[in-house]
Amino acid sequence: MTQRFSFSLDATDGKARTGVISTPRGEIRTPAFMPVGTAATVKAMMPESVAATGADILLGNTYHLMLRPGADRVERLGGLHRFMNWAGPILTDSGGFQVMSLAELRRLTEEGVTFRSHVDGSRHMLSPESSMEIQKKLGSDIVMCFDECPALPAEHKRIADSMRLSMRWAQRSRDAFGDRPGHALFGIQQGGDVEELRGESAEALKAIEFDGYAIGGLAVGEGQEVMFKVLDYAPGMLPIDKPRYLMGVGKPDDIVGAVKRGVDMMDCVLPSRSGRTGQVWTRRGQVNIKNARHADDPRPLDESCRCPACSNYSRAYLHHVFRSGEIISSMLLTWHNLHYYQELMGEMRAAIAEGTFDAFEDRFHALRAEGDIEPI
Amino acid sequence: MTQRFSFSLDATDGKARTGVISTPRGEIRTPAFMPVGTAATVKAMMPESVAATGADILLGNTYHLMLRPGADRVERLGGLHRFMNWAGPILTDSGGFQVMSLAELRRLTEEGVTFRSHVDGSRHMLSPESSMEIQKKLGSDIVMCFDECPALPAEHKRIADSMRLSMRWAQRSRDAFGDRPGHALFGIQQGGDVEELRGESAEALKAIEFDGYAIGGLAVGEGQEVMFKVLDYAPGMLPIDKPRYLMGVGKPDDIVGAVKRGVDMMDCVLPSRSGRTGQVWTRRGQVNIKNARHADDPRPLDESCRCPACSNYSRAYLHHVFRSGEIISSMLLTWHNLHYYQELMGEMRAAIAEGTFDAFEDRFHALRAEGDIEPI
Repeated sequence: MTQRFSFSLDATDGKARTGVISTPRGEIRTPAFMPVGTAATVKAMMPESVAATGADILLGNTYHLMLRPGADRVERLGGLHRFMNWAGPILTDSGGFQVMSLAELRRLTEEGVTFRSHVDGSRHMLSPESSMEIQKKLGSDIVMCFDECPALPAEHKRIADSMRLSMRWAQRSRDAFGDRPGHALFGIQQGGDVEELRGESAEALKAIEFDGYAIGGLAVGEGQEVMFKVLDYAPGMLPIDKPRYLMGVGKPDDIVGAVKRGVDMMDCVLPSRSGRTGQVWTRRGQVNIKNARHADDPRPLDESCRCPACSNYSRAYLHHVFRSGEIISSMLLTWHNLHYYQELMGEMRAAIAEGTFDAFEDRFHALRAEGDIEPI
Repeated sequence: MTQRFSFSLDATDGKARTGVISTPRGEIRTPAFMPVGTAATVKAMMPESVAATGADILLGNTYHLMLRPGADRVERLGGLHRFMNWAGPILTDSGGFQVMSLAELRRLTEEGVTFRSHVDGSRHMLSPESSMEIQKKLGSDIVMCFDECPALPAEHKRIADSMRLSMRWAQRSRDAFGDRPGHALFGIQQGGDVEELRGESAEALKAIEFDGYAIGGLAVGEGQEVMFKVLDYAPGMLPIDKPRYLMGVGKPDDIVGAVKRGVDMMDCVLPSRSGRTGQVWTRRGQVNIKNARHADDPRPLDESCRCPACSNYSRAYLHHVFRSGEIISSMLLTWHNLHYYQELMGEMRAAIAEGTFDAFEDRFHALRAEGDIEPI
């Protein structure tokens, strides 16, 4: 296993790319979907089950972990990998996004953000320097720059000011990160839905130099059409030989559209969160297991799926345990959703390698257009 | 695999017994602890994980299943085993106990009990005949007679009247059950804490003839001392060559005391329910994972335990996920508790076979007397 962080691009098909990120903790096949393990657990899943779905890397949330159980504590306990029993690579976000969406009494200055914890009201400060320190204590393999961004739509000046602050913070993050062989630091492009600002941001980041580049400030309310418009140009502004990570995306069709546009990595709570609310994805689109049509249905969610929920249980059972509020409902539906997402990534990787991404995409949309199987 | 239900008694040590119940769906090593799968799931556990703890048989609750998803539906879907993905034997209770503890607007007559569902208020009737019918639809391997019992302490007349009603219901259950090769019907001894009534009940059941005999009407508020006093004589009133099942028991020391007194089977929600409330058992007694003393403790719950919670996680992690309300807390702590219970049963089976049950019991109590490991 390699002792340094590297990225090899193995094939492209149009703008879509497939390759491998190598880290001392294992390889990440790209395009990669990263399940979210917010508070040191991918909710309702054992980590070995997450690995069984095909996930190569998890995402951890700096904001949640710094508040509970605390970065110092995680460090004393041997780091996040050991704490949560995940031997593979972990990417941590910078905490910036969650501070702005979850914390109370936020105050944003050039220095950073002060806020109160949503857990216990305690006061905290996050800055580029403290975010780097916390992510180091967690033992993250891929560290994200501390940044800030507005929800969309937003005014040009708000987007520009925020992007330039994030670029100053990117330099401070780089300086604070220092030299940590085997660990990577990713810059985050901002600029909202304004092409020239995305370009300015990309140039600023490239001048600093990072191990990978994220596209931030999307999936913040702009809708798929605007997001795809930005993704038509934003990935191409970033270095071709480094991984490109689209943060916080998304639904299956968002993911396919992003990969098509040259994105290598994504993360989203959607498959796990939806598993807990009874929403599942199959090749034929979305299914709401709560619906009474499933109560007597002996068929699996998706007969072509090899996950435990589809291999061993009927829709009727999944409906029953969801309606009864049983924990196994969250366990099985989350497993299915994560399995579906990883299958999707695997199919895209294969299609790109074979140069058949367009055919894959046609099939993907055609099957979804058929909709769920007919009720019995 | 056998096509009929049978019990072989392999060894005894004092009153303690070890043997094997054979069923077409697999063998049950006795003494056996049956995890409770109330609503077609052992809460927070995948069925293959329950099997991995060493459980040979599950208990299902007729009352819950008849109300949701309904016995007819379970039958249409291929029976409870297929519905919940458990290939091994399943014992179902008769529904009588839960009706009396959970249902609304109960009305008890010679015929049976009418009540309203606690789920949706719908009206239902349970009688010996309908309970047999429902348990048959569920596909239960071991069917329990429909019975009724008072909480203890209770007056002699109340205990006697209730026991005699249950004995009339036992005859009606036997008649309604009919001849079902490979399936067993167990009678239930009643009589509260009154020795002569326990004797009268045992004689009535033996005259009817059952495949096994349960000791009912205990673990209903009487405390361990009274329960053990009853268990000093009640099991010996039942046929020596049939399994004896103590219903709804109990804590680890209840179980050891019951096995010592000649009980072969037990069930209880305690290990799974306690797993969800942060209470765990180890060889050294009970641990409350919520307690702040565990927050920085890198040690496992029990270093001699081979369950996933103890093999892969620190007390600090288990404390963190419990406090954070994460589902994996219920998953891991339930797994540990069920593993602990099955380990305990296995040790007792081995000790009885070797004729060293007294030494086992001394060690069991001595380790518990030491209490949990010292805080770090």
